[in-house]
Amino acid sequence: MTLVNDYLGPAGGGAWFSDAQWLQALLRFESGLARAQADCGLIPESAAQAIASACAQAPLDRDRIAEQARASGALGLALVKPLQQWLQAHAPQGLPWLHWGATTQDAVDTASALLTQQALLALLAELQALVDALLDLAARHAATPMLARSLLQPAQITSFGLKCAQSAAALQRSIDQLSQLAPQALCVQLGGAVGNGATLGTHRLAVEQALAQHLGLKACGHSWHTQRDSWMRLAMEVAVCCGSLSKLARDWSLMSQYEVAEISEAARGSTSSAMPHKRNPVHCMQAVAQTQAVPPLAALLLGCMAQAHERALGEWQAEVAHWPELWRHAHGAAAALRQAAQTLQVHPQRMLAHVAGLRGLVFSEACVHALAPFIGKHEALAAVEQLAPLALEQQRELQELLMEWVASRTAPELTTEQLPALCRALSQACDPQQAVQASQRECLALLASRSPTPMEESPAHAEQAQPCL
Amino acid sequence: MTLVNDYLGPAGGGAWFSDAQWLQALLRFESGLARAQADCGLIPESAAQAIASACAQAPLDRDRIAEQARASGALGLALVKPLQQWLQAHAPQGLPWLHWGATTQDAVDTASALLTQQALLALLAELQALVDALLDLAARHAATPMLARSLLQPAQITSFGLKCAQSAAALQRSIDQLSQLAPQALCVQLGGAVGNGATLGTHRLAVEQALAQHLGLKACGHSWHTQRDSWMRLAMEVAVCCGSLSKLARDWSLMSQYEVAEISEAARGSTSSAMPHKRNPVHCMQAVAQTQAVPPLAALLLGCMAQAHERALGEWQAEVAHWPELWRHAHGAAAALRQAAQTLQVHPQRMLAHVAGLRGLVFSEACVHALAPFIGKHEALAAVEQLAPLALEQQRELQELLMEWVASRTAPELTTEQLPALCRALSQACDPQQAVQASQRECLALLASRSPTPMEESPAHAEQAQPCL
Amino acid sequence: MTLVNDYLGPAGGGAWFSDAQWLQALLRFESGLARAQADCGLIPESAAQAIASACAQAPLDRDRIAEQARASGALGLALVKPLQQWLQAHAPQGLPWLHWGATTQDAVDTASALLTQQALLALLAELQALVDALLDLAARHAATPMLARSLLQPAQITSFGLKCAQSAAALQRSIDQLSQLAPQALCVQLGGAVGNGATLGTHRLAVEQALAQHLGLKACGHSWHTQRDSWMRLAMEVAVCCGSLSKLARDWSLMSQYEVAEISEAARGSTSSAMPHKRNPVHCMQAVAQTQAVPPLAALLLGCMAQAHERALGEWQAEVAHWPELWRHAHGAAAALRQAAQTLQVHPQRMLAHVAGLRGLVFSEACVHALAPFIGKHEALAAVEQLAPLALEQQRELQELLMEWVASRTAPELTTEQLPALCRALSQACDPQQAVQASQRECLALLASRSPTPMEESPAHAEQAQPCL
Amino acid sequence: MTLVNDYLGPAGGGAWFSDAQWLQALLRFESGLARAQADCGLIPESAAQAIASACAQAPLDRDRIAEQARASGALGLALVKPLQQWLQAHAPQGLPWLHWGATTQDAVDTASALLTQQALLALLAELQALVDALLDLAARHAATPMLARSLLQPAQITSFGLKCAQSAAALQRSIDQLSQLAPQALCVQLGGAVGNGATLGTHRLAVEQALAQHLGLKACGHSWHTQRDSWMRLAMEVAVCCGSLSKLARDWSLMSQYEVAEISEAARGSTSSAMPHKRNPVHCMQAVAQTQAVPPLAALLLGCMAQAHERALGEWQAEVAHWPELWRHAHGAAAALRQAAQTLQVHPQRMLAHVAGLRGLVFSEACVHALAPFIGKHEALAAVEQLAPLALEQQRELQELLMEWVASRTAPELTTEQLPALCRALSQACDPQQAVQASQRECLALLASRSPTPMEESPAHAEQAQPCL
Repeated sequence: MTLVNDYLGPAGGGAWFSDAQWLQALLRFESGLARAQADCGLIPESAAQAIASACAQAPLDRDRIAEQARASGALGLALVKPLQQWLQAHAPQGLPWLHWGATTQDAVDTASALLTQQALLALLAELQALVDALLDLAARHAATPMLARSLLQPAQITSFGLKCAQSAAALQRSIDQLSQLAPQALCVQLGGAVGNGATLGTHRLAVEQALAQHLGLKACGHSWHTQRDSWMRLAMEVAVCCGSLSKLARDWSLMSQYEVAEISEAARGSTSSAMPHKRNPVHCMQAVAQTQAVPPLAALLLGCMAQAHERALGEWQAEVAHWPELWRHAHGAAAALRQAAQTLQVHPQRMLAHVAGLRGLVFSEACVHALAPFIGKHEALAAVEQLAPLALEQQRELQELLMEWVASRTAPELTTEQLPALCRALSQACDPQQAVQASQRECLALLASRSPTPMEESPAHAEQAQPCL
Repeated sequence: MTLVNDYLGPAGGGAWFSDAQWLQALLRFESGLARAQADCGLIPESAAQAIASACAQAPLDRDRIAEQARASGALGLALVKPLQQWLQAHAPQGLPWLHWGATTQDAVDTASALLTQQALLALLAELQALVDALLDLAARHAATPMLARSLLQPAQITSFGLKCAQSAAALQRSIDQLSQLAPQALCVQLGGAVGNGATLGTHRLAVEQALAQHLGLKACGHSWHTQRDSWMRLAMEVAVCCGSLSKLARDWSLMSQYEVAEISEAARGSTSSAMPHKRNPVHCMQAVAQTQAVPPLAALLLGCMAQAHERALGEWQAEVAHWPELWRHAHGAAAALRQAAQTLQVHPQRMLAHVAGLRGLVFSEACVHALAPFIGKHEALAAVEQLAPLALEQQRELQELLMEWVASRTAPELTTEQLPALCRALSQACDPQQAVQASQRECLALLASRSPTPMEESPAHAEQAQPCL
Repeated sequence: MTLVNDYLGPAGGGAWFSDAQWLQALLRFESGLARAQADCGLIPESAAQAIASACAQAPLDRDRIAEQARASGALGLALVKPLQQWLQAHAPQGLPWLHWGATTQDAVDTASALLTQQALLALLAELQALVDALLDLAARHAATPMLARSLLQPAQITSFGLKCAQSAAALQRSIDQLSQLAPQALCVQLGGAVGNGATLGTHRLAVEQALAQHLGLKACGHSWHTQRDSWMRLAMEVAVCCGSLSKLARDWSLMSQYEVAEISEAARGSTSSAMPHKRNPVHCMQAVAQTQAVPPLAALLLGCMAQAHERALGEWQAEVAHWPELWRHAHGAAAALRQAAQTLQVHPQRMLAHVAGLRGLVFSEACVHALAPFIGKHEALAAVEQLAPLALEQQRELQELLMEWVASRTAPELTTEQLPALCRALSQACDPQQAVQASQRECLALLASRSPTPMEESPAHAEQAQPCL
Repeated sequence: MTLVNDYLGPAGGGAWFSDAQWLQALLRFESGLARAQADCGLIPESAAQAIASACAQAPLDRDRIAEQARASGALGLALVKPLQQWLQAHAPQGLPWLHWGATTQDAVDTASALLTQQALLALLAELQALVDALLDLAARHAATPMLARSLLQPAQITSFGLKCAQSAAALQRSIDQLSQLAPQALCVQLGGAVGNGATLGTHRLAVEQALAQHLGLKACGHSWHTQRDSWMRLAMEVAVCCGSLSKLARDWSLMSQYEVAEISEAARGSTSSAMPHKRNPVHCMQAVAQTQAVPPLAALLLGCMAQAHERALGEWQAEVAHWPELWRHAHGAAAALRQAAQTLQVHPQRMLAHVAGLRGLVFSEACVHALAPFIGKHEALAAVEQLAPLALEQQRELQELLMEWVASRTAPELTTEQLPALCRALSQACDPQQAVQASQRECLALLASRSPTPMEESPAHAEQAQPCL
């Protein structure tokens, strides 16, 4: 990963798919396959041991492997060669059984599942930490009033807690869905040259299961060489999750604007000598930059599904090459927002100030409700529609204008008992703490509805539920 | 839908999202909302009846609605106006309660869920019919040998049935997943101006549930104004499903080539006077054209998830505008392939001819296995590697060349009993009917594993499982 | 176009690719082809006249054409049938020469070029009007100071005029590029069944040129059946142009926020009874919604370039089907922003207020420059870095704090002449009108550099430059 | 670049954007800027020399730079720090002038232009070599008949040379366009903190020009911080070029199929022990895999154009991060196809065999023309339509069937002179060498029209034409 990508995510992010990890995973496939075949009685135990030794000891030259893969077009095959050479020299009894019954795509797809398993665990951990931080913010700010905004314009009152709880709920749904989809996606690939397991014959299923158990993956019972829907389903959930992350990053970027300043990311050293006042929302920037790439990447991966016959001419190879990016982007975005959330500075006074600046206009609907019992709904509506623009123009409170207007009406006059009652009703209608109650209620409902996640349950149960994680 | 789109799908395809359907669904929301509120005791029964009458009788001018929506930027609002005018004139008691507690996005999102429900049912029906046709082909051709191909080159033997069964299994997984995701996606939207249900207050949930029941949708218990992951999850499954369809279309397009000619679409009238010999795979073409658009469309929809605050400035509106296309493309592709599958002409002789043309080379691996017991694995491998190119060059059968080569070896010679045994072994190794068994086995396993779909179960159970379909 | 799209663009937008327009353009191709062939002496004059009559009089049933195209997979062919029937009945001498030497793709591609020509003219007109409105704003606000913002945080001073001039320059580059690319893209397609013009033989070029002249298109001298780079180049410029439009829409959306309020779109009637204070930036919303779709659409069109052999199986058909959307989106976005620009309300006082609110911090760099001659650059930098945070904390002007700090220094003291000079220097450094000069200079340079556009030049010249527009 | 990408392109491909190259280019910017400012008399010569020394000698720790960029969100800034430290220690006179008047984006964008310049040169070289190889194939096979195919079905006769010439022409147009667009895209970025060049004031333009000359880039006279259309225009041409490459890769993949076998890539060692007969089109596979990624990547880059205000929050950073991929993919695809083209094995006999296999049906149109003078066009058409299917069914030549049919007609009989004449006419109509003439003509026209490329012209002229290459 080059510099221009590196600084947009956490240190070490994306290391799951490094060359070292790839080679290690491919070796795990080859030795695991021989082990599984020996366990099933298909190959001699000595061959499995020889292959395990080869995988542990054969020297691998990354550039040479690349060169051979470039020539043959087959990455898995290039790895087999140095193993063959090692076996030839040190343990020829393993030679006939190396890679036996497998094809290059078996090795690469299974290795990819192994690496993806690690990437998924890292992603889930970041997501869960982000959800926890959001839920914490939600609990603390369930009743912190702020402007809700539609089309970037102030609408009515909501609470900062509700916004956090909504994002947490969306991300929790992605966590749940990822956990649910993983077992169908993180499966051993073992179909042989054309996906029908011809070499292994009736033993194919037993070997697949033994290999899966050995590697900590699942066995889906059939090869998924070119039917990659289960695999892609997991990727699409990552993409949906990134959509939820991008919404959060968008909101927080907007709230971090100097002119809005309702939240700020934790201060870091000045980032610009020419502009010492800048408090850049760096984590939001990173999350935006990471998620920006995900929808096109999803399109790229989906487009690779049109794989011809039993192995694609290009589409499969492109899928394998770009698959890691998805995990890097999702993890980078989740990590950035997790850091932002854990240290977020919330400015409730500023939120209130924006409400106050609207002079009661965001309470227009509530004012109509307050007025209606006294002067009728129709007239209440008319009064509010007429006076609301004046409130902003004259910078006076809408409720004052409404009281003046009611008091100045000649007929029907309100009684002297009614006026103070109306005054109280309007005061309540224009009280942010009253107005926030609806959002607080929704926020608390979301907090309450949150089912315990698998990770919080007993390890035994969790293991049962997510056997391949 | 214009001509350039129309002919790529079935007649009437995509009609679920016509203007007439949109207006009808928006009216269903408005009258349903009033009905639900009356049922909950929040508004007078007379108001609900008045609003129902307005929805049934108010004249709607499509172009005028478009014009007003263009001016206000709010599609739902533009529809409310003619209803207001009708109520004013005919049933003013309904006026204060029309659209009460709702916002324009509530109406549009709920209407979109209603229309999507219809589109999903139509898609599922096409998919199921396609799966059925594929399973029928799979059953008939489980043991029909043909070349498996990797990188568009012949690899080994598979069966046409296995290919069909694999596609059927992938599509069945999409059917199952769509059915499972639908209840979380096809939900009433009822959040009011900013998604917190402020106007309806503590009654929001009850109204949401009543409205959902009334409309045949689900109530998810919270507004999903800007957290659209559940909605998008359904769309992404449609996109994955289109990926599986595109793979099938790709395979069949390739098999339909004149030079391959292993299948052909049912004949239709000549499509070109200049080229009477052409048998265009029109259904495949339609499926390719339809699925071609889906990955970018998925990217577009995912990109719309970054919705600012409580209603997006553009992203939501773009999502609503493009959402229908996804369903049209998926349905069009499924319908085209369903028609192709139901009338597909399969040419097993041609499949066999391609196998034969390779002079036994696709059985190389099996020949090694056959030879090994007689001359050792190492020498077997060497013999095959040496003779395989000659088979193609001299256009002679590999097994003949191998027999000659074995017979001509001076030492160690095979005994006279061994030679006929080897001959039999090689014959078997090079027998397509033997070679197809692995694929047949996998095909039958897929056919057997197919769990009964909800649609095949008792209606009661199905209703329980898919309450919102 | 359905309601959910219609209200996002101007009335009548996208009508260039209506069914009526498609049919008309296809007819123009057929009659034009016969005319060109008659002019070249290849077919009888009477045949050309008969075909012209057929195109003018044959009744076309849109749904029947769709049905036939659906069956044959060939849109152009479906149109030929009713013409044949008419000729059979009324002027059989035209029959053998109808569609002679052409293929269905010739008709569709040429028709598409004709419709695109209209769409391009409409787009150029909107773009030019938008550029003009932006240049007008630029001229008026060249020296109107406002905060420049990076990462959504205030940076230094720029001018509203410069921002407008920069957008105008970018859009002008697109106008110029579109005009330059059009002649290579808007070409007659005339290659016959496989693109080599076999039927017309050595007359192909002459017929192509005659047809081009007749239709007002260009002749590129070869068929572009499956080499669609020139065609796609035009589309990609539209996509780039939409990128520039999306930047403008993004900026103006942000400036329209209530908390920023530096500009506002012209008032329209209230859009929400519950929120009378809302001034929605509807045109920005439309522009965002329209441009949101363009990058994925560009990907879709680019993806269609992988067209197999002499006519694609699906990719070409998908390209034709989605091509119109690009023009609709671009035109819709340009029209929305043009309307916004022509009636934009600019609030310079608000812009200044945001500058003032930063208490001189945006002038930090200038303050360093002002201080350096008096106390050295190193110490100047230190002073500003130390005092800048205090200015915000204490809500005092940075220049005051700097003067106090300088005055309180014991050594080296400034002389009594130096203090007022420094005071003046700092005042100037913190004067927005001084600070805006750099932006004003850049703005005026952009205004000056604007070369006259083809449209402003003499018609003769323009015609020469854009022969196919 | 990891293994899963590496083997899909040429060795060393994509090295233009390695970390080492990035750092080098950023240093070139910093030292070049000081040099330019000294040349313009703005900073002391000693400062420029000090900064040059710092850039040459300061130790750079890649991981530390990444870490600092991660913290500040600003890549350019992180590089400045080690330079500052070096200057502090070794040449403090340079310190105040390091990075003077520039912002982090100036450094990164200019560095990106420098690296892109190298990438473009490498891409142009590969493209030109591919074009040359294609033109060579075109010249050799201008009259080599083969089936043209539409919808993957045989259509009529074309020549392999024409196909090659068409691809060459498309790629040549991209070469020309890239060369033309480069000067507007490969420009120095020098706008300072907010793009108005405030610090450099009236000297900005002079410094920009001096810097450009120093670096071998162009000066466009204004900052392009957030108006990135010229930059993106170059990228979109790369994307269009990849579209043309993908079409070529698609065609050749299809022609390489075993069942078609009209071309083959040069043999390499067997790629699979289990399938010794496989001749994988590895270069085509690589080209498909590389170009597959380009349309979504184009969408990603276009989507980044919506950059807010004077520096984007995420969109710019994402653009910079993904920009290199475009060049890697294009170069990889061009290199793969160049290698394929330079060693391509063409099999004209096989091409002819496919023609022959159709028993004259591809000459149907020509047969009608041949028959018409003898029996009238109407009857000719009817005869061909009736007999064409029989030719395939009975595996007899269409021209034989037509002769028999004519001979068996009772009235009007052809004269005894007419029959041999008709026989000759039909023979000619069904002669591939006759049929190929149309394609040969088009092929030669394309070869002739090829204007000399800048690279072929005198160096002086070339330099003038492409000053920034």
